[in-house]
Amino acid sequence: MRLPDIKFQLPRWIPDFLEKSGTFFPTGEDRMRFAVALSRQNVKNRTGGPFGAAIFDDSGHLTAPGVNLVTTANCSVLHAEITAIILTQSILGRYDIGDGGRLNFSLYAATEPCVMCFGAVHWSGVRRLVCGARSEDAGAIGFDEGPKPQNWVSALEKHGVEVTRDVLREEAASVLRDYAASGGLIYNPGHPG
Amino acid sequence: MRLPDIKFQLPRWIPDFLEKSGTFFPTGEDRMRFAVALSRQNVKNRTGGPFGAAIFDDSGHLTAPGVNLVTTANCSVLHAEITAIILTQSILGRYDIGDGGRLNFSLYAATEPCVMCFGAVHWSGVRRLVCGARSEDAGAIGFDEGPKPQNWVSALEKHGVEVTRDVLREEAASVLRDYAASGGLIYNPGHPG
Repeated sequence: MRLPDIKFQLPRWIPDFLEKSGTFFPTGEDRMRFAVALSRQNVKNRTGGPFGAAIFDDSGHLTAPGVNLVTTANCSVLHAEITAIILTQSILGRYDIGDGGRLNFSLYAATEPCVMCFGAVHWSGVRRLVCGARSEDAGAIGFDEGPKPQNWVSALEKHGVEVTRDVLREEAASVLRDYAASGGLIYNPGHPG
Repeated sequence: MRLPDIKFQLPRWIPDFLEKSGTFFPTGEDRMRFAVALSRQNVKNRTGGPFGAAIFDDSGHLTAPGVNLVTTANCSVLHAEITAIILTQSILGRYDIGDGGRLNFSLYAATEPCVMCFGAVHWSGVRRLVCGARSEDAGAIGFDEGPKPQNWVSALEKHGVEVTRDVLREEAASVLRDYAASGGLIYNPGHPG
């Protein structure tokens, strides 16, 4: 039995996009605008679902971007948040981004995390999660965010992750609506209901 | 800004181990014994946490094994279940393992899934989750399974994933205890409590 290595490439448009955007984002809105722009570019380039995320250090320097690669990489795990977490841990060379709680990295997610990414945030070592569109906005175009606990915000905060919601929500939600309007694939687990 | 590719290698002991174990497991207990043996080998070879998992097709042929690679791959996402899901989707060439609910693949997890893997199972397209040790057994040696909803079993079943628990629980839990007794690293998110 031969097993493949686990190997994924980021979309080819990302380096050019970073060249243009730069990698320093002074304010929280700047950082969210960047995450939303990633989601829009992912739709425009047809490289995955309409989701973008990014991890920044305490001063606003980009550590790693993330986009949803589910349909193009054939991997249900590669949501935008998880792509950003894996890249950040690879760049930093450690599995705990916060290095024992001493460093304050923030994850900006253009849409609130699904149940899997909620769990991935918990394990990642980021100290702050900032969200744009709400889960309901993803639900409105047919994406299932899964059985996330109702108290997911307080559950993260109890474990030391500060959560901020609704930053540029309308701008972020418009990407979701545009994806659906352009006939983008709404993939969900294929179980009969 | 140069970004790395996402690339992970499986531990080098896995091909030899599969050569010896074979890849056909007729009964449910056989399949769980294999998942537990993976967790034990991962401890013995010091290639990650004491967790193993495997995905089988309907007739009991192994599709892919998975082990926890968090500490060796520097990636908090690479729990055993997620490694098995990513490999299976790569081998099958699709992000929905069940192919729209038409195929019945099963995920055997030597320990019940944490909150992230619970979500990953939901998205993966497997139709059945079989668990060995309980979350409490992982908790007893200090591993935090995270804020998983209390109703996680019914939440999965509602979404079409059948859940079976406590298969060879004692055998599976003994690997966890041996890991702790041998001084294995108990990693948890590094947030101050």
